[in-house]
Amino acid sequence: MYIKLRLRLACSLAAALMFVAAPVYSQAPVAPSRDALVDELVVANHILANEGVVDGYGHVSVRNPASPNRYFLARAGAPALVTLADVTEYDLDSKPVTNTSATGYAERFIHGEIYKARPDVMAVVHCHCLDVIPFAATSVPLQPMYHMGYFIGEGVPVFEIRKAAGITDMLISTPELGRALAQTLGSKSAALMRGHGAAVVATSLHLVVAKAYYLNVNARLQLQAMQLGGGKVTYLDPEEARQAVQSYERSWDFWKARLPRN
Amino acid sequence: MYIKLRLRLACSLAAALMFVAAPVYSQAPVAPSRDALVDELVVANHILANEGVVDGYGHVSVRNPASPNRYFLARAGAPALVTLADVTEYDLDSKPVTNTSATGYAERFIHGEIYKARPDVMAVVHCHCLDVIPFAATSVPLQPMYHMGYFIGEGVPVFEIRKAAGITDMLISTPELGRALAQTLGSKSAALMRGHGAAVVATSLHLVVAKAYYLNVNARLQLQAMQLGGGKVTYLDPEEARQAVQSYERSWDFWKARLPRN
Amino acid sequence: MYIKLRLRLACSLAAALMFVAAPVYSQAPVAPSRDALVDELVVANHILANEGVVDGYGHVSVRNPASPNRYFLARAGAPALVTLADVTEYDLDSKPVTNTSATGYAERFIHGEIYKARPDVMAVVHCHCLDVIPFAATSVPLQPMYHMGYFIGEGVPVFEIRKAAGITDMLISTPELGRALAQTLGSKSAALMRGHGAAVVATSLHLVVAKAYYLNVNARLQLQAMQLGGGKVTYLDPEEARQAVQSYERSWDFWKARLPRN
Amino acid sequence: MYIKLRLRLACSLAAALMFVAAPVYSQAPVAPSRDALVDELVVANHILANEGVVDGYGHVSVRNPASPNRYFLARAGAPALVTLADVTEYDLDSKPVTNTSATGYAERFIHGEIYKARPDVMAVVHCHCLDVIPFAATSVPLQPMYHMGYFIGEGVPVFEIRKAAGITDMLISTPELGRALAQTLGSKSAALMRGHGAAVVATSLHLVVAKAYYLNVNARLQLQAMQLGGGKVTYLDPEEARQAVQSYERSWDFWKARLPRN
Repeated sequence: MYIKLRLRLACSLAAALMFVAAPVYSQAPVAPSRDALVDELVVANHILANEGVVDGYGHVSVRNPASPNRYFLARAGAPALVTLADVTEYDLDSKPVTNTSATGYAERFIHGEIYKARPDVMAVVHCHCLDVIPFAATSVPLQPMYHMGYFIGEGVPVFEIRKAAGITDMLISTPELGRALAQTLGSKSAALMRGHGAAVVATSLHLVVAKAYYLNVNARLQLQAMQLGGGKVTYLDPEEARQAVQSYERSWDFWKARLPRN
Repeated sequence: MYIKLRLRLACSLAAALMFVAAPVYSQAPVAPSRDALVDELVVANHILANEGVVDGYGHVSVRNPASPNRYFLARAGAPALVTLADVTEYDLDSKPVTNTSATGYAERFIHGEIYKARPDVMAVVHCHCLDVIPFAATSVPLQPMYHMGYFIGEGVPVFEIRKAAGITDMLISTPELGRALAQTLGSKSAALMRGHGAAVVATSLHLVVAKAYYLNVNARLQLQAMQLGGGKVTYLDPEEARQAVQSYERSWDFWKARLPRN
Repeated sequence: MYIKLRLRLACSLAAALMFVAAPVYSQAPVAPSRDALVDELVVANHILANEGVVDGYGHVSVRNPASPNRYFLARAGAPALVTLADVTEYDLDSKPVTNTSATGYAERFIHGEIYKARPDVMAVVHCHCLDVIPFAATSVPLQPMYHMGYFIGEGVPVFEIRKAAGITDMLISTPELGRALAQTLGSKSAALMRGHGAAVVATSLHLVVAKAYYLNVNARLQLQAMQLGGGKVTYLDPEEARQAVQSYERSWDFWKARLPRN
Repeated sequence: MYIKLRLRLACSLAAALMFVAAPVYSQAPVAPSRDALVDELVVANHILANEGVVDGYGHVSVRNPASPNRYFLARAGAPALVTLADVTEYDLDSKPVTNTSATGYAERFIHGEIYKARPDVMAVVHCHCLDVIPFAATSVPLQPMYHMGYFIGEGVPVFEIRKAAGITDMLISTPELGRALAQTLGSKSAALMRGHGAAVVATSLHLVVAKAYYLNVNARLQLQAMQLGGGKVTYLDPEEARQAVQSYERSWDFWKARLPRN
């Protein structure tokens, strides 16, 4: 299983890298099969639920590397319960291309509009990950506490939906709101959403799951450090953060092995 | 199982809506069978225990939609261990109509008196949910941190039993105390009980379980936000909270699937 | 199993009450068999470990109701792993009467000396329960946050071993230190031990397990309330605490059912 | 199993003591077989993951008592998934002697350089244990909260990698950085690593696992105590800490029994 996992990781990273300008880890450019990618998407759903990054709500998608104007996302449902049959292919306007009779996530525009705006992005997570929500509600910026949260050094903008659309139901349920969120995200790895959660992006499924996980862990550690240090906290230097890039390969291995067996 | 769950959810929502003026999610008005409802009540008990909303103490009831002056509640016992045979039917004075030889919860008046005062309420939870207890002991009002806690925007009153009855054993063990609690609750979704816990109400079992769960999560997030922001926290605007109504359907699916299998 | 549990609870309470002046819950005075009591002691060990009140360290004992100058305590070992064969009978000087070749807990004097000083006490827990340790290290007294922690209203004294014996290894490893701890405990339900943990006593095994558990929960809630309220926290009134006596019967049922099955 | 564990503990302690000047617990000097030691190293990996001391990242090594210029460490991979086949023998320059084609941990120099500098050290853990990271980012020194964290009384220095090497990727990926870390560690049991985690050392595998675990627990308790006491916290006196030496034997028994069974 270990070897199989590593092969899969290599494949999905490779697929991702076909569309990325500056690959961090060089891999042979072999695209994963559609079946393998969709299978990984189901695993990503289960990991996010099992590790508490999502609860009954939240979602994760992956761009179709063979057809970059399409992405895969489960139909509406709890991530822990997603099966292969739930996975739907969407175009970048977030209209279903397969599984067209199923109900989609109301907020699928988070995914479609980010894929449009960010050709480098191969996978997207939307979560209500708990420890980031207090940060989204204050003016305290997230800062990188340790190398596992290195990407926070890029800055984590906060999306204020009131600025984009006034008073709403807080959901990104239109293409316009998706575009506004994508604009706030800019070139970063993550954006917080005030009163809601976060959107996290990466160049592969493995990476996006880990970034969503460590975004949340880092938030908890930062709150603790601020309570402890009275504000005098040493965060990663911006250049340290830039250098401390993680592949998170072992995280995926670990989390996959921890999934409950049915 | 997924489809079966959705059917059940539709049914119980429908039943609830027969007694509600302004349904949030429109459904065909098909009442669930008594058996189906009692079965769901057992599941609701198990979910509340498994998700840590209740421990050995706390209880959940559902109004009998076919006979709105009656409600179902387990006899006295730990929620995690409730079985079909424990479910008892009560009239609104909280006198048992079935299972009359069993010992009832001393605090069943929480349920009966709220059902009397609130014809719209179809289900009630009483919990000692931990993270709300510090709020009940201070003058800090709960505020909606994110859309999942939208109903907190209505305001969450705190029941001070001393005002109603002076020095007591803290329990709602008489109809009078039940009425005083119902009065404090007013038209809201939840009331905190100082030195004790909370009472949460909704138009269905699925909703009341989720509201009890997210009441507690929101309390934890608010404490973190207050520690982080020094008081400058942006809560949901009252109108945002009104619009951000949740069905919590996926939460029920998720929590039911997480129950230990016997 | 439910019925069996209740019978057992009645029996052990009854046994306890034979030696108590003012019983809280009146029961027929039927002493449990030695086998039943020792069996419950094993369960109490497992519950304390499973609920996180003890980790690899800590211990729980029960007085022999048929021979009140004796008590049962496992030989030295992790509570989660205690079996019937590990249970040893001690006299009140904490010398083993059975199982004499086994190594005993170095701190068994906590138990023996408390049983000597407190004829009403039928069961003792010593734990390093985490959330009370910060209180033991400060001058902030524990206060009852809710009815489940009612006994905290009696006051929870802090044992400062330096006052009794100067600089030590922090352990209660002599009869003298056991006596000093018992003296600090006085007539209360619990004493904190600075830099160490707590000693908790009650009139039965079921009660002592629950008091140890809720002592720790209450500590966590009090810290949260103090952070939230800036000191303006409404604790249970002393008379409310006196009236809010709990039997914790359902807690034992719940915790026993949660034990991992081997 | 209990007896077998105790035998093993005795053996590994004994092995450790062959190289230690002042043994804390005297044991017969019987060296464990290489097989037994490697088997324990696998268990140590699994315990650290199961108890949350490491996640997908972190590592633990043990010196070869029969050949003190060698140490055992898994090849690169998540600790929870380490098997016997992954265990590799290294020389003190951290070059693999067995399993030479496998990829090693980039940070194995933490282990090799500490073994060089500290002949008394028989086992090393590197972890990103979460609750110590806020301490590593502030100037607040860790202090011993209770006897289980006794070794913190020695002082826990913080390694600032910027002082050793300026801006880096935060990793100890060269012998030079390993030496700098070993120098900061000095004669202590643990050093925090700013923006990264900790390195913990001991005279046996059992001890190093427990020290890493309680280092983290103690950090959490200290944060709580500081929040509670406004700075007026009574830590263990240095001499109390010296006397409160733990063998942590029961912790290992407990943690081993808690491992998921495959």
